[in-house]
Amino acid sequence: MKDYSHILIPYIQELEPDEAGPDPSFVSAKYGIPLEKIIILSRNENPFGPSPKVLKVLNGISLNRYPNPTEFIEALSIYSGYPVENIVVGAGMDEVITTITRLFLKPGDESLIPSPTYGYYSNAVKLCGALPIYLKDNFSFHIGTEVLEKVKIIFLCSPNNPTGSVMPEKTICRIAESTEAIIFLDEAYVEFAEKHLIKLVEKYDNLIVGRTLSKAFGLAGLRLGYAIAPELIAKQYRCVAPLFSISSPSLAAGVAALKDLSHMRKSVAKIISERNRLLNRIRGACPSQANFLFIKTAEKSKKVTERLLSQGVIIRDCSSFPGCGDHCIRVTVGTTEENNRFLELFAQH
Amino acid sequence: MKDYSHILIPYIQELEPDEAGPDPSFVSAKYGIPLEKIIILSRNENPFGPSPKVLKVLNGISLNRYPNPTEFIEALSIYSGYPVENIVVGAGMDEVITTITRLFLKPGDESLIPSPTYGYYSNAVKLCGALPIYLKDNFSFHIGTEVLEKVKIIFLCSPNNPTGSVMPEKTICRIAESTEAIIFLDEAYVEFAEKHLIKLVEKYDNLIVGRTLSKAFGLAGLRLGYAIAPELIAKQYRCVAPLFSISSPSLAAGVAALKDLSHMRKSVAKIISERNRLLNRIRGACPSQANFLFIKTAEKSKKVTERLLSQGVIIRDCSSFPGCGDHCIRVTVGTTEENNRFLELFAQH
Repeated sequence: MKDYSHILIPYIQELEPDEAGPDPSFVSAKYGIPLEKIIILSRNENPFGPSPKVLKVLNGISLNRYPNPTEFIEALSIYSGYPVENIVVGAGMDEVITTITRLFLKPGDESLIPSPTYGYYSNAVKLCGALPIYLKDNFSFHIGTEVLEKVKIIFLCSPNNPTGSVMPEKTICRIAESTEAIIFLDEAYVEFAEKHLIKLVEKYDNLIVGRTLSKAFGLAGLRLGYAIAPELIAKQYRCVAPLFSISSPSLAAGVAALKDLSHMRKSVAKIISERNRLLNRIRGACPSQANFLFIKTAEKSKKVTERLLSQGVIIRDCSSFPGCGDHCIRVTVGTTEENNRFLELFAQH
Repeated sequence: MKDYSHILIPYIQELEPDEAGPDPSFVSAKYGIPLEKIIILSRNENPFGPSPKVLKVLNGISLNRYPNPTEFIEALSIYSGYPVENIVVGAGMDEVITTITRLFLKPGDESLIPSPTYGYYSNAVKLCGALPIYLKDNFSFHIGTEVLEKVKIIFLCSPNNPTGSVMPEKTICRIAESTEAIIFLDEAYVEFAEKHLIKLVEKYDNLIVGRTLSKAFGLAGLRLGYAIAPELIAKQYRCVAPLFSISSPSLAAGVAALKDLSHMRKSVAKIISERNRLLNRIRGACPSQANFLFIKTAEKSKKVTERLLSQGVIIRDCSSFPGCGDHCIRVTVGTTEENNRFLELFAQH
């Protein structure tokens, strides 16, 4: 077979495929557990699903016509309180991140990434031929000599994936004020937190806040991401983003979901209540403002994860997060029944 | 407002936003024509829509779970006759093109693009900081001294957008054999043509064939693109492509559409029959193997297009295609009624 090394970009050759962890059908086949009995607590999805109003709008859409995101952007404008000029969209937060990195990162540039945090930031950075620089200890994030001339983007995630911790507002302000680099603040899980920080976009012209409808709104399957950005960055984003990446049913569902905030809030309240119950029951669980818990385990995380997998409960082994070590797991808050099953199996270790 | 020129990548600052031409709601508002009377013949969509079986699968999908493209890829394998190892997918052909360019093009590289052709190739090339080199006269495409060391991708489109012409198989073979560069052959419209050329992927390890479900399958709103690629390129593609960009309803709809080929073939037959009728009726129309006609106009194309727009019929002014001049339009084949309305208005010029 042909060797493409003479034509493939060297930094692209070094990439590994992204992965989503074990799929329920894989677990079902491997351990002989019926598919409907598998509990998925590994992907921070919302077990309660979207507003029933979302399901209604999926019918009656012209599938043969190219999508138009206008109404979705208008609905995001109302939800966020920002004018449409400040709003950009993408097929999930990952596309938003990819597009932002393409604006600012070229081969040889650098990007600061606290660790541990969401893995896709470094994928997107490497894809541009740029270098991710990991800053250990997310909790006492200090900007200073680390911010060199080559750093073009600093990624912050609050509530942080996989730890669930939030970064204080004053820390984010201090970072934004101390650098000319772009700050990408990922608020994917913010609806589960005590407060959000999109108001800071008005204050800092180097701050972009990323958001998604995959978590609180229960629409992970529809790929709906967005960001609130300074107007000039948003304008440039639209020159780089694909014209049509979000499908018509997804856009219509997004509008319907944003019009039924009471459903979202009820589902978030249930998850927060379950999260607090789990936190009190699990030794090693860290306080979280997201829809998951970060748990320090006595056993190796790989062993715990595999044992639960063999019993049909999929959780996330955090050893794949750079900087996490090999004694941490991340467990999505599920329904009461799902959480009880997890508690029961986890207690056995 | 802040000037980002010190941090935005220079080649990114030069980009313009992509555009889809006038939207029906814009035309309706501007000319006071009821929205339901607007005829859209500007985007090469399929007026007959997808299989009714597609609509049925849209209900009952878990929207709160992340998508899984496995079944869709398996259905594409059956449709294309290639194993899944050779198949890659993207949120529309544009994402497939974007991903391919990221594998091979870095700043300073070059890409050959015949002209006139589909505009997104050059967008994707510029997005990598690479240089599109336009080769005039698509019909007698000659590879030779143009293929310099810096050329990493050659784009070919057959049937070609906007001309509808096909490139002979032997020409494509000659190009593939004469270069080490990657050939991306865009077969978006191939179901409307006499033959397809995916068999050549087996023969040439530098050939990738791109496809879409937006045209013959009537699913432009769902963003379903794919490519048949040599196995090693497909493997590298999966390291670069976003893990989740196609939504769950789109994937399920794609599977359903690929299982109902008789619907697709009937809809294609109707479009070909209408295309031939239009070809015989319109002076200046070029023979086409796609779902549109390329028409040379006596009047300036901008004037023709605007006149039809004011009467509620949206067609494509081709002056925005590099190399097309200002006397060409592209008209999508619509339903019989839509085509008759176009003929009536076009005859008045």
